Amino acid sequence: MDLTSLFEPRSVAVVGASRQKGKVGYEILTGLVNGGFEGQIYPVNKSCDELMGLRCYGDLREIGQTPDLVVIVVPSQAVLGVMQQCSALGVKTVIVITSGFKEAGPEGRKLEEQIVKIARTGGMTLLGPNCLGVLSPANKLNASFAGMLPKLGKIAYLSQSGSLLAAIIDMAGAIDLGFSKLASIGNKAILDELDLLRYYGQDEQTEVIAGYLETIADGDAFVREAERISHDKPILLMKAGETGAGAEAASSHTGRLPGIERAREVVFERAGVIRCGSIKQQFDYASAFANQPLPKGPGVAIIANTGGLGIMAADAIEREGLQLARLEEATTDALRSSLPSSANIHNPIDVLGDALADRYEYALDHILRDPNVESVLVLLTPHAMTECDRTAEAIVRAARHDKPILACFLGSSRVETAIQVLRKGRIPCYDSPESAVRVLKAMADYSRWRNRPKRVIRLFPVNRRKVEKIVERRLRTGERELGELEAKETLEAYGFVTPQSLLATSPEQAVSFADQIGYPVVLKIWSPDIIHKSEVGGVRLGLMTPQEVMDGFDLMMYRIPKKRRDAEILGVLVQEMCKRGREVVLGMHRDVHYGPLMMFGAGGSMVEVLEDAAFYLAPLTADEAREMLKGSRTYRALLGDHGHEGVDIDAIGEGLQRLSQLATEFPQIQEIDINPYMVGRQGTTPIAVDARIIVDQPT
Amino acid sequence: MDLTSLFEPRSVAVVGASRQKGKVGYEILTGLVNGGFEGQIYPVNKSCDELMGLRCYGDLREIGQTPDLVVIVVPSQAVLGVMQQCSALGVKTVIVITSGFKEAGPEGRKLEEQIVKIARTGGMTLLGPNCLGVLSPANKLNASFAGMLPKLGKIAYLSQSGSLLAAIIDMAGAIDLGFSKLASIGNKAILDELDLLRYYGQDEQTEVIAGYLETIADGDAFVREAERISHDKPILLMKAGETGAGAEAASSHTGRLPGIERAREVVFERAGVIRCGSIKQQFDYASAFANQPLPKGPGVAIIANTGGLGIMAADAIEREGLQLARLEEATTDALRSSLPSSANIHNPIDVLGDALADRYEYALDHILRDPNVESVLVLLTPHAMTECDRTAEAIVRAARHDKPILACFLGSSRVETAIQVLRKGRIPCYDSPESAVRVLKAMADYSRWRNRPKRVIRLFPVNRRKVEKIVERRLRTGERELGELEAKETLEAYGFVTPQSLLATSPEQAVSFADQIGYPVVLKIWSPDIIHKSEVGGVRLGLMTPQEVMDGFDLMMYRIPKKRRDAEILGVLVQEMCKRGREVVLGMHRDVHYGPLMMFGAGGSMVEVLEDAAFYLAPLTADEAREMLKGSRTYRALLGDHGHEGVDIDAIGEGLQRLSQLATEFPQIQEIDINPYMVGRQGTTPIAVDARIIVDQPT
Repeated sequence: MDLTSLFEPRSVAVVGASRQKGKVGYEILTGLVNGGFEGQIYPVNKSCDELMGLRCYGDLREIGQTPDLVVIVVPSQAVLGVMQQCSALGVKTVIVITSGFKEAGPEGRKLEEQIVKIARTGGMTLLGPNCLGVLSPANKLNASFAGMLPKLGKIAYLSQSGSLLAAIIDMAGAIDLGFSKLASIGNKAILDELDLLRYYGQDEQTEVIAGYLETIADGDAFVREAERISHDKPILLMKAGETGAGAEAASSHTGRLPGIERAREVVFERAGVIRCGSIKQQFDYASAFANQPLPKGPGVAIIANTGGLGIMAADAIEREGLQLARLEEATTDALRSSLPSSANIHNPIDVLGDALADRYEYALDHILRDPNVESVLVLLTPHAMTECDRTAEAIVRAARHDKPILACFLGSSRVETAIQVLRKGRIPCYDSPESAVRVLKAMADYSRWRNRPKRVIRLFPVNRRKVEKIVERRLRTGERELGELEAKETLEAYGFVTPQSLLATSPEQAVSFADQIGYPVVLKIWSPDIIHKSEVGGVRLGLMTPQEVMDGFDLMMYRIPKKRRDAEILGVLVQEMCKRGREVVLGMHRDVHYGPLMMFGAGGSMVEVLEDAAFYLAPLTADEAREMLKGSRTYRALLGDHGHEGVDIDAIGEGLQRLSQLATEFPQIQEIDINPYMVGRQGTTPIAVDARIIVDQPT
Repeated sequence: MDLTSLFEPRSVAVVGASRQKGKVGYEILTGLVNGGFEGQIYPVNKSCDELMGLRCYGDLREIGQTPDLVVIVVPSQAVLGVMQQCSALGVKTVIVITSGFKEAGPEGRKLEEQIVKIARTGGMTLLGPNCLGVLSPANKLNASFAGMLPKLGKIAYLSQSGSLLAAIIDMAGAIDLGFSKLASIGNKAILDELDLLRYYGQDEQTEVIAGYLETIADGDAFVREAERISHDKPILLMKAGETGAGAEAASSHTGRLPGIERAREVVFERAGVIRCGSIKQQFDYASAFANQPLPKGPGVAIIANTGGLGIMAADAIEREGLQLARLEEATTDALRSSLPSSANIHNPIDVLGDALADRYEYALDHILRDPNVESVLVLLTPHAMTECDRTAEAIVRAARHDKPILACFLGSSRVETAIQVLRKGRIPCYDSPESAVRVLKAMADYSRWRNRPKRVIRLFPVNRRKVEKIVERRLRTGERELGELEAKETLEAYGFVTPQSLLATSPEQAVSFADQIGYPVVLKIWSPDIIHKSEVGGVRLGLMTPQEVMDGFDLMMYRIPKKRRDAEILGVLVQEMCKRGREVVLGMHRDVHYGPLMMFGAGGSMVEVLEDAAFYLAPLTADEAREMLKGSRTYRALLGDHGHEGVDIDAIGEGLQRLSQLATEFPQIQEIDINPYMVGRQGTTPIAVDARIIVDQPT
């Protein structure tokens, strides 16, 4: 969608402009005029001839021109009429500021449907209703009631909350942060987060995209678009309503899974989206991404004029999984030669409490030249002799284009002007070493994401036709869960090894099969009417001898028909017992928004599995499968430890990739749980011991 | 230790006072004079007659009086001489500001030892060396070079970093936070964190204690003192160097345990100490604890003028484990009757973007009266019409003594004066809803800690004498690990049930024992020389038949002597095999600082155990034992889920309490691991299957 007329109109009409201070129609017009908009402004209001020195029109037709953009501020009942006028005049872009639509109940919803209809029929682009408007500093356009037009910068912002946007502009002013464009998307009747994201993605003035969202209409499309755009521009997303969304989802089967929130996070992570825990954190991130280069790696150097601050930063670096850069000898030699002898010349570097600006500059200069240093954190507390401003100037001078420098000057009035110097010099300054380190972590993660290897999905040779038949048959019968044999066949068709098993109809046959398979064996009752076999005593594990097999067979045949008189019993399955190796779980759940979520976890009861589970979106690359394994808490145990041999990690990874292929090729499959998936030591083939597969018509 | 002369001296001498701006001796004297100290000030400096209008003395003796407090700022080489003078004059309290002591290397360390000796001999109290000094706003005493004396308030601060203290005072000024006393403890040559903590604990002007520490000299004493003081005054502790300390500890056995950091946290938690993740967070906490009452429970009500902020706060409340208060009908009725129809009258309450101060005041007033509401968070973003200042005034008016109110006014210049109004009115205001919620969480946790039931330690009847004998014998031999039988006897003496086992010396005897115990059984090689039995094939599990027992016995006797020619083999242990129930781990590790740390975790390999482990300090109450269980991730699985029966939770709790008693009564026992501890369903007795016990001379 072309949003040029929204952000760069040559003429704007304000329908509902007002001369009464405090009214939204006044604020919008004032914003436009005071922002210095250089195009035509047409106030529209029946009861005025002039507003703020501009000719005021009785209605849109009177203008005699078709404005590029019409901002509507009239009461909700009157919006429909104005929209019809817009349509008649061929207006292509409209902002409806007015509230009282979908958010206000059933009547408002009806009204909103009507204006959407007019807009669609007239081929109009509509922002709102119930929104704050748009701002575009580059064009001196303030078509909003957010207050002052912010400084020009490289950050584009989109917000689902109008009032939050106003606060954000106010906060940005205080820390000298500039914006390319800002929009409040309100009820998202037509334009939504996806349209704005796309537009910001291709906007040449925008280098960083930030947003506040409560809902995402089309999660899948949003994530795909975000992934594409993240290659060039970091996307900083504050998503609220997470727990609310969790509550909503709780009605569906998966809502109960404790891992589902983590799963959604993974979706954004894969797309390179940088999640922000609060608006404050979003600001922290934005000021670094907009002003500093990305680090090439995790190695951080710290310069401080007090040991305490350096320790706090080092603690945070370790907690966040970054690294204290190991300085080269040339660097420590240089530091030793010029810093006082009691200074710490190793990272974290302590230039001591009596350091003046020159000592900081010298240290910073040498550290930036060290190839092991990938980012620098400069910390300062004001001592009586500290040259705060001059130190800030020195940092600004030392800054280069290839390594990010962040600062934390702790204090308030004593460091106030120094912090302004830093900000003017594009060095972000934070309120604690911990906040600064979190920013470095976000930058390092994003940098690694940008440089990640190209994704190659391995395709295994499989028997797709066979699974098609099984799935089709299931969908015809209306029973959503595949039977045990069908599930087994499905997995085998995709290269999984399942336990050997044979259907016996007599005790003698069961013994003969058991002899053939090898002891111990498992017996399972076989009936299309019995799904939960163990509940009726239909599973007997670890049978060691022919006698036990015979006893087990007879006991099932004697007891189960008494419990389940209706059940048609076809026989008893004699199955290989997998007793070697560790039990893990492979799974897939098709999320309604994001598609097939792959799951890996330690074996055991379902609760334990989910507590430990790692999630990722199919299709999986080999690297991603391995990352999933690493993401689970059971990973270290799988690698083995003293006394326990490790298992074949790659074999699990392959299992995940095969399952991912199955999920990708069959959108009808809604859920798969291979539990347990028995894995042995290096070189052995894992066995998919039990599986549950649910199909449904794809949505 | 009486620190009255340190914080409330009637006369202060400054040895090394200077007229040269920028010199520490100048800053100290200026601080004293400008702070308005009302007692006698004696500058001491050979080369001056007068300083800042005060008579200046050539040395301490010239004064003719013994000052209550002497502040020493002379170069480190000269400190010794001044200390000797102090001693001769009977000075009781000294602050050594000068650096160049222990922190500067071996020579400095020697110098420090000398001044400590003089101080101890003369019965002097010494703060420092290498410190910033002390400040006591109530006495207008600024015996430091921290800059301005801060505002008087209820917070006492102690800092191991002097320069951090200066920054803290600067930051506190900006948010109108006041202090009762502040001290920089420097090298802690005599006075340390424990002395200051004790003093602040009994100081009547102090209601909140905050501190920044890098090391704690006597962890055990500190924690005990902190626990006592926390009953009356919250202690907000920022502890840096955690990861450094972790690295240091890594050389010892326990340093490798991934749970040990959590374990240390638990120690502070039990003492009621409130840990702060950063100085910023410490400020967040301090301003609430110093200005607002504690909440009675976890129920939070939110009032906002924009949905987005309310959602963010609600998300944070759920994440932090607090609760959105459920409003009573009377409250919602009252809100419905006066708020606009589109306002949200349920928690989080949305008073809408056009809310003026009166709407906030009305809502706040009704919410505070609701018995389900235990704390209130007031959120505001500035809209064009928002009355920020008047809303702040309304909140201040509405504040009561029984429920905390915190605020977050999002924005900068637009809310600046409103935030000042809030702060003057003692309503803390935060930079994000998330920060505010974290403060409420800290307050609710502390409130719960203060009201926790009295700790009652259950004492089980045990055979203490028997364990004494075993431990004494072990300590005599010098071998630290108890043998398997000794460990078994120790546990049995404390009421644990262990597997039945008998020592067989022939295959026939083994079979006869197995028949007696019941199949399946375990065989274990029995030799004082073989500790890791499985490594030599000395453990055979799950033997089902007499034949298997006989084969197993013979195979061990044939193979093991070949592998371990030196080992004296006494026979083979035939042991009951515990196969019913779930495996968990009970453990104890005696921490060098904090004493016996109890551990509980899921069974499995050691890595898995530690990943999941919950820790607490012995002796344990029944409640604490249960909390430990709840703190482990395996807890939900232990309770049981669909298909899996739960286990006897109380029986595990009792096991932990018995182990806690053993650890408490035997300081010689350094480590215990009962792994696995096999627990069955409700009413069954758990079995301590295997155990490892290490003893040593208590330190």
